[in-house]
Amino acid sequence: MEELRAGVEDVALVDHHAHGVVPGELDRAGFESLLTESDAPIPGWMTQFDSPLGFAVRRWCAPVLGLEPHASPEEYLAARVSLGVAEVSRRLLAASGAGRFLVDTGLGGGIAELAEASGKPVHEVVRLESVLEDVGRSGVSAAELPARFQEELSRRTAFAVGIKSIIAYRFGFGFDPRPPGSAEVVRAAGSWLRDGAPRVADPVLLRFALWAGVERGLPLQLHAGFGDPDLDLHRCDPLLLTGFLREVAPRGVDVLLLHCYPFHRNAAYLAQVFPHVHFDVGLAINHTGARATAVLAESLELAPFAKVLYSSDAWGLPELHHLGARLWRRGMTEVLSRHVDSGEWALDDALRVARMIGRDNAERVYGLGPGRC
Amino acid sequence: MEELRAGVEDVALVDHHAHGVVPGELDRAGFESLLTESDAPIPGWMTQFDSPLGFAVRRWCAPVLGLEPHASPEEYLAARVSLGVAEVSRRLLAASGAGRFLVDTGLGGGIAELAEASGKPVHEVVRLESVLEDVGRSGVSAAELPARFQEELSRRTAFAVGIKSIIAYRFGFGFDPRPPGSAEVVRAAGSWLRDGAPRVADPVLLRFALWAGVERGLPLQLHAGFGDPDLDLHRCDPLLLTGFLREVAPRGVDVLLLHCYPFHRNAAYLAQVFPHVHFDVGLAINHTGARATAVLAESLELAPFAKVLYSSDAWGLPELHHLGARLWRRGMTEVLSRHVDSGEWALDDALRVARMIGRDNAERVYGLGPGRC
Amino acid sequence: MEELRAGVEDVALVDHHAHGVVPGELDRAGFESLLTESDAPIPGWMTQFDSPLGFAVRRWCAPVLGLEPHASPEEYLAARVSLGVAEVSRRLLAASGAGRFLVDTGLGGGIAELAEASGKPVHEVVRLESVLEDVGRSGVSAAELPARFQEELSRRTAFAVGIKSIIAYRFGFGFDPRPPGSAEVVRAAGSWLRDGAPRVADPVLLRFALWAGVERGLPLQLHAGFGDPDLDLHRCDPLLLTGFLREVAPRGVDVLLLHCYPFHRNAAYLAQVFPHVHFDVGLAINHTGARATAVLAESLELAPFAKVLYSSDAWGLPELHHLGARLWRRGMTEVLSRHVDSGEWALDDALRVARMIGRDNAERVYGLGPGRC
Repeated sequence: MEELRAGVEDVALVDHHAHGVVPGELDRAGFESLLTESDAPIPGWMTQFDSPLGFAVRRWCAPVLGLEPHASPEEYLAARVSLGVAEVSRRLLAASGAGRFLVDTGLGGGIAELAEASGKPVHEVVRLESVLEDVGRSGVSAAELPARFQEELSRRTAFAVGIKSIIAYRFGFGFDPRPPGSAEVVRAAGSWLRDGAPRVADPVLLRFALWAGVERGLPLQLHAGFGDPDLDLHRCDPLLLTGFLREVAPRGVDVLLLHCYPFHRNAAYLAQVFPHVHFDVGLAINHTGARATAVLAESLELAPFAKVLYSSDAWGLPELHHLGARLWRRGMTEVLSRHVDSGEWALDDALRVARMIGRDNAERVYGLGPGRC
Repeated sequence: MEELRAGVEDVALVDHHAHGVVPGELDRAGFESLLTESDAPIPGWMTQFDSPLGFAVRRWCAPVLGLEPHASPEEYLAARVSLGVAEVSRRLLAASGAGRFLVDTGLGGGIAELAEASGKPVHEVVRLESVLEDVGRSGVSAAELPARFQEELSRRTAFAVGIKSIIAYRFGFGFDPRPPGSAEVVRAAGSWLRDGAPRVADPVLLRFALWAGVERGLPLQLHAGFGDPDLDLHRCDPLLLTGFLREVAPRGVDVLLLHCYPFHRNAAYLAQVFPHVHFDVGLAINHTGARATAVLAESLELAPFAKVLYSSDAWGLPELHHLGARLWRRGMTEVLSRHVDSGEWALDDALRVARMIGRDNAERVYGLGPGRC
Repeated sequence: MEELRAGVEDVALVDHHAHGVVPGELDRAGFESLLTESDAPIPGWMTQFDSPLGFAVRRWCAPVLGLEPHASPEEYLAARVSLGVAEVSRRLLAASGAGRFLVDTGLGGGIAELAEASGKPVHEVVRLESVLEDVGRSGVSAAELPARFQEELSRRTAFAVGIKSIIAYRFGFGFDPRPPGSAEVVRAAGSWLRDGAPRVADPVLLRFALWAGVERGLPLQLHAGFGDPDLDLHRCDPLLLTGFLREVAPRGVDVLLLHCYPFHRNAAYLAQVFPHVHFDVGLAINHTGARATAVLAESLELAPFAKVLYSSDAWGLPELHHLGARLWRRGMTEVLSRHVDSGEWALDDALRVARMIGRDNAERVYGLGPGRC
């Protein structure tokens, strides 16, 4: 259905959870390592190009670089070198049709490069655990830490549109859902500082940071579902956040569950029953490649359409910013076409749902008016 | 495939788990609140009509009220007022083609209205927790409570076809699967009665009621899977009932797992391995709207066809009784057509499976012979 | 797409997890009992032929026996008797196109019959728990048990291509992921031997056997996901193995998660992030019948294609060896055709993926060169 396809194509997506692009050239191993959530070297007997995501790169990114669809990995990487990273990024980001990026600044750089190559507004999302670790390494005492963290968080979020927690990675969602007491926090901070303030994994400190994030009042993003093997996936089912979500409800703070796969149906349930809960299937769209359509279809089963957002969760490669948008547009077009063709949905409703999920819901949640840039 | 479609259309469905219809007029907020499992007011920036279920109401119920498919919410609600609730109920229930309803009488009223508007037999399913709470508030002592509950349960189930437990809501499925001892029950009853017999949440009392239900010998329905946010969904995975199901097996009592989404594949597994276990995907059929087909398809992966039932889990709105049937018929027609068109199933088998799931299995489990009304 | 269909049809499948075929004649009850994972007698009010697997037998096996597709159960069983088991096995195994079988020798016999009837190489996979139970019943002392088990395991695996653990059945995956200490093992062995060395369920002994398996260095198969009701399915989610998989990673031993349904997306995640982890959806392919296509599609969402294998998990009936292959070929053809028809995958890539999953990955993992038979 051409009208639907064109309408979905035209949505100036708000990519509400993305990262920067790696500025330098990448060799094949470096490129492949960004096509997987694994943190181990790719074994010699396989290539990460032989995956749903790898096939999607060859199919959808190759033409943007002037190659035939399904170009070989060798051709693809050669074209990348020949055009240069800056040109590759410019092309892929322009072709994505994304209109804005919300960027988690807690994980590496490449953000200036993303802004430069895309020419689009880039908004900041501040990662709580990074701020806490910076404060912990600044020579603070345990007693001063809580206030110092809150000051630093206020300072760092002055221009931010959202806050993110990766408590999923550091502890999982089986934490006590209530805010910790002050004495507890100071005690936990003491142990942590004595150890030299390494990567925060203490649940009391993580909960302290999380609740400070809630009090800050900005939309709160939570990594949920799959990611690199630093997490235990069975501890990252968003349903395990139910108690925390109940505690947050009266605070008037929006919560955004990121990724969620393979628990996206669970996330959609939470988005139905809790007015402040929203979710996306970012990361999964890219990694499932040709199957992104199926994942998107499942994500539209239980949630009101005002509660679903778009993100790429692209990190490092502009290919991922591009594919997130490309696979979302293809997948949404197919899912919505099925419902329109079967007579179950009206065309206008389908187009409206695409705009809500692709742009409007994010603009509402993050307060990104047309005038904000 | 017209023959298949017509055959599925003709099944006089036994809706083995439903509730009554709200008798009075509803304003828009009241109507929308019955389109969601959320117990919170619908926020001003969204409408529950923008959901899979809301779109299904506009698509499938509007024509029954004399409107075009996809009528606007405003048009739909105006037609509802103009026709009057009684006429709306009559039309929607007649058009559903449901032949019988099994009604959980533990949650509000509207049952006489359902019987009246549908003109079909309505059978009672008694909710254990409601009976227990009624006994608890009747001035009984802790020592008398067990016997008094059993008497009251016998009395209340004299004409019932089944018993239902909502232990999923009150505690979740992580309970000790064996019956509690008498002394334990009296002790738990003592605490509960001293507190004024509020909503039962004590696991000993819940298990006592559940096992009394088993001893009563009627088919036992258990809410499983999603529902309103009074439950913790991760505690309602029917797999957590495995130990209890093993204990019940030798008693010769059929167990019916209701709803089950998003754990319906888990429920289907239990229905394969335990002869007394059955399940449905009621509630999910309505809430997933155009995606009900996908959910039905998944529900038919692992279970023998004699173990799957139909229900709407409609509550309050006759739209929900109607849509349960409509979406089930459409979804089953599509799923079965695929298998027949691809040559994998014979047409006669497909029609037989539709009749088993839509009617025959429920008639067998609940003893609803053609003569019973 | 004929070229794709023919290409998938031509793959000489390595069935990397199967069992033997029952040598004698089976009556209807005996036959039906092998069409379900239930261990209970089939109730009189149902037949296991009325299931996705039962329909698949009638559709796909009947023609191999000279009957029309969708022959009745009575016709099917009569043809089976009339041809004789040996001929039925020969026909079904030949028509499957399987090129090799890896057989778990820990569960009943029929392996010579499988080799004879198929005329294909059959390789052994040794079940750890069976070896341990044999040693436990051999009159060994607790102190001698560890060394005796390791000797026996070495002896029994001398010609094996892999090792299998059914710790999923005996304890579930919530075990301490590290190897147990020697004193612990001797203590646990003492209790066990004093009880007459029954079916091993002690987690210390199970972990001891599992780690002895890891040290043996052969590919390690782990039952995961559904199976007969001797297991608690919620304890068999492969995600619960995450800690164990991290411990095994540095040992250079490949781990193969078997079956995995309904947790196959979880297994695919593990296969993406851990280079040594592989998985299949055997057993589920057969039991889901016409829906095997959907399960296969889901299994191809997150894993690199080098990490997915084929198996039937057939046990007892040659119908199951046949259907595993038939449904895999049909399902893969449909899934891959969709991706090729939509332009998302190149045809050559699709054919290559089919060969990897159907044959090449298993040959690589188990060291089954063309010369090995």
